[in-house]
Parts: sequence; C-alpha cells; structure tokens
Amino acid sequence: MSKHMSEGEDPDFIKSLAKGLAVIEAFGPDAPSMTLSAVAQKVGLSPGSTRRVLVTLSKLGYMTYDERDRRFHLSARTLQLGYSYLASLPAFSLIQPRLAELSDRLDESCSVMTRDGREVVCIARATAKRLQRDYMSVGTRFPAHASSSGKLLLGDLPPEEFEALYDGTKPLAAVTPFTVADRPRLKTQMEEARRQGWIYTCQETALGMASLAVPIRVGGRVRYGLSTSATLTYDGPTIIDRYLPDLLKAAEAMERFLETRN
Amino acid sequence: MSKHMSEGEDPDFIKSLAKGLAVIEAFGPDAPSMTLSAVAQKVGLSPGSTRRVLVTLSKLGYMTYDERDRRFHLSARTLQLGYSYLASLPAFSLIQPRLAELSDRLDESCSVMTRDGREVVCIARATAKRLQRDYMSVGTRFPAHASSSGKLLLGDLPPEEFEALYDGTKPLAAVTPFTVADRPRLKTQMEEARRQGWIYTCQETALGMASLAVPIRVGGRVRYGLSTSATLTYDGPTIIDRYLPDLLKAAEAMERFLETRN
Repeated sequence: MSKHMSEGEDPDFIKSLAKGLAVIEAFGPDAPSMTLSAVAQKVGLSPGSTRRVLVTLSKLGYMTYDERDRRFHLSARTLQLGYSYLASLPAFSLIQPRLAELSDRLDESCSVMTRDGREVVCIARATAKRLQRDYMSVGTRFPAHASSSGKLLLGDLPPEEFEALYDGTKPLAAVTPFTVADRPRLKTQMEEARRQGWIYTCQETALGMASLAVPIRVGGRVRYGLSTSATLTYDGPTIIDRYLPDLLKAAEAMERFLETRN
Repeated sequence: MSKHMSEGEDPDFIKSLAKGLAVIEAFGPDAPSMTLSAVAQKVGLSPGSTRRVLVTLSKLGYMTYDERDRRFHLSARTLQLGYSYLASLPAFSLIQPRLAELSDRLDESCSVMTRDGREVVCIARATAKRLQRDYMSVGTRFPAHASSSGKLLLGDLPPEEFEALYDGTKPLAAVTPFTVADRPRLKTQMEEARRQGWIYTCQETALGMASLAVPIRVGGRVRYGLSTSATLTYDGPTIIDRYLPDLLKAAEAMERFLETRN
C-alpha cells in the first residue's frame, strides 16, 4: 500500500477515495483487464476492500465486468476524468491545430508537455503520418530529467524548488543508457538550455530517438515544453538546423494564445 | 446530489469515492477553477464533505490550490486516470498514425469514437492543420443519437438493447436544430447506415459541420466509429465521393490491427 493510502493520521483524508483512484491507475498497457484478486494484489488492498471499490466503480460506469473471463476493465467513462483537466486548460482548442501544422511541416511527431512533480506529461500530440506506431499519446509520462521538455521545465524552477523536488530521492533513473542521470551534468544541461532557449537531447527518453524542445512561457514562467521527436536519421546539427526555426515560431504562436486567454 | 451518490442502500457502494469522482468531473471549460463553495454547490455536497474530498485530492496530487484567489484547479495527474483507459485499448499505438495519415490526405479532422451508454466519446483525434481551433479532442462527448459514429454504434445494438438503453428517457436532445431527435426517424437513419455500411450526417452535432462515418468492427460487432468532419463548403454527395473511399480503407486497416491484437 502506498504512503498516501495509509495516511491514517489525517481525519480529512478519505482513504477509500485514494483506493479507488489507485485501482483506476492500476490498469494500463501491461494490465488491460484484471480479475479481482489481480487488482487486489497489484494495488495492495484486501480482497474485500478491492471488491467494494470495483463494485462502486462499476455502478458509476467507470468499470466493466466480463462474466466470461471474470475480469474487470476500464470503460470509456474514465476518459471524462482526464478530459476535465484538459478542457480546463486555457486555449487548449487553439493549440491542437498549431501542433498539427508543425508536425506536418516537419514530418515528425510533435508534443506539448507539462510538468507534474518529477514527471512530464503529454497534454497534446500530433503524430507523424508515416510512422508505423506512436510510442506516446496524450497522458504519456516520462521522468522529467530524461525528457527534453522536462529539462526546460526543471531549468525554470528556482534552485531551492529544484532541490526540494529531488530532495532525498534516489539516484536519477536511467530510462535509456544515454539518460543524463548524474545531477551535476543534468544541471549543466538545464542551465545551457535556459541560456540558449532550446535543448537538443539524444536517446535520453527512447533509443533511436532524438528530441528538440523549446519553452512555452506564460506569465514569465516556462509552463509547457514544445518538442519534436526525430528518429536518428540525421545528426544533431542537422535536426537543429531543420526543425528549430519552425519549433520556435510555433511556440511563439502558442504563447500568444495562452497569454491572451490566461 | 446524483442518483449514484445517494445509493445508501448498498453497503458495498462507497459514497466518498463517488463524491471524489464527481468533484473531478465538475471541472471543465466552463469551470477551470473553483472555490470550495463553488465546488460544493456544483456537485451538491455539504461544505464539510467537499473540503475532505478537496483535501484528499490535493494530497494525492490530483488538485492544486491557489492561495491568491482561493481556488482549486485540477492538476496534470488526473490525466493518468483517463490514460489508464486509453493505454488499455489494444492496438491503440497503431491507430494514431493511420488517423494522422487519413486527416492529412483528406485535409479534414478525423476521429475514432466509441460508445459509453447514451454518449459517444472521442478516443483518438487528428486535427486538420488549416483550422483556427478544434472543437473536439480525445475525451470529448456527444449524445450518441446526434453523432454519425454514434448512429453506427447504436445501429449495431440488438433492438432490445437499444430499447433498454433509451427506456424511460425523455425526448432525445436536439444538439442543433438539425439533430434527428425523433425516434422513428433515428431508427430509419440507423437502419440505412447499417445496410450501406456508412453514414452521412449534416449539422446534427455542430452547426456548419457535416460528418461522414464508417464502422470499425472487432469480433463481428461495431466497436468504434471512424469519422471525418467537414465544413459545409461542399454538398453531401461531394463529401461522400471525396472522402468515403479513404475512410473505408483506413477503417479496414484499423480493423486488421484490432482483430489481430484482440
């Protein structure tokens, strides 16, 4: 059971709400459907507790039960929970066409990412049409320190906030063998990115992929990162030459929308 | 308070979990941030109950509180709840590039929709790059009877399931003045769509927009609708001539992925 679910000291903390959300998050690509006991095991709850959560989520329409294999799976209703967040973002409806245009011009997939603690989350994505599959979508997360946008977002934090965020955490995770997992090197990288207003990273998030990201500022702070991911067909300088001008122009247009709607 | 939140008779129903999910869903484009009392009023809960829910969601990272204006807003963590569903869908990573390719070829926005009760939900979207803004994104919902994909999905239901779904419901909502809100006419429309394997609708979901949709079948059932939305620059027959062949081809490719991964 996670730290949060056992915060028994606080009378205002509703444990059953925490359990319910943990059950929803337990589903995913590695577990698209689960039996009651598999859910209980994965989330670390008693079978009785798990049953009540699954019954409640099913009654509310967030979960479906298949009698044939006795497995539960999430239903499309759960999308409403994430959509509430996306629809709350100012100017969200204006950003997607700009992203589609950018992806089409570069013939590469493009993303808008925001930071959530020590992770970055994709909030908008345009997929390159020539791809076989897309390794990320809206909602995909990566460790912030391993992501080009993440390094821009972390680099905008006051040093004390950065230290507090990573205080007491174990060594930084190496998502690939190329992830900069060494703090002094990460800080140098963040500082350079902040100075030049963009960042190029190579295979830090996924093998075979380079990434180029620029900041999207709202109210003087870096609130989002706009990035394009390119397969390593070109070398770094070529990617920067080809993509940076369009990336900067798109970020500027998005900033304009976000500032006026903020 | 909604019906579900007051299901006090069932000892297995966790009311506080229902309250928490209702609070998350209360946020959106019309209410991107709210004070405690605004949340309480919108969801129909007592201030004390609302406070405990907001405190819990904040501790878990789904909510942020801004001291300056005393308002709560959702944080990017909530995206994880919807993402768990999307990532559970088989072949999801294969569908997005096909959708981007289709959108590029037609120069129109394209969507994959699924049914959730009496609504359809967008699970994948590729936005036309020439648009100023996009009126829908992953997670957007429409009444199923007012949507081209929805009519295909409803038309695949056995008649008794259709009747049960709309049993006792009030007259069908007219999303626009052109929505087919008359049941006999809706059934004729659904039947024709099923017979011909596609549907063209005009301004039923949004004014000024026509829509063309084809079914995506998995295991012999219509599980998704693939649609393109076009502004009414062309007349109906032109839209059908221009877009239907590519739409059918893309749906066939998606069916192939989904069948093999099912």
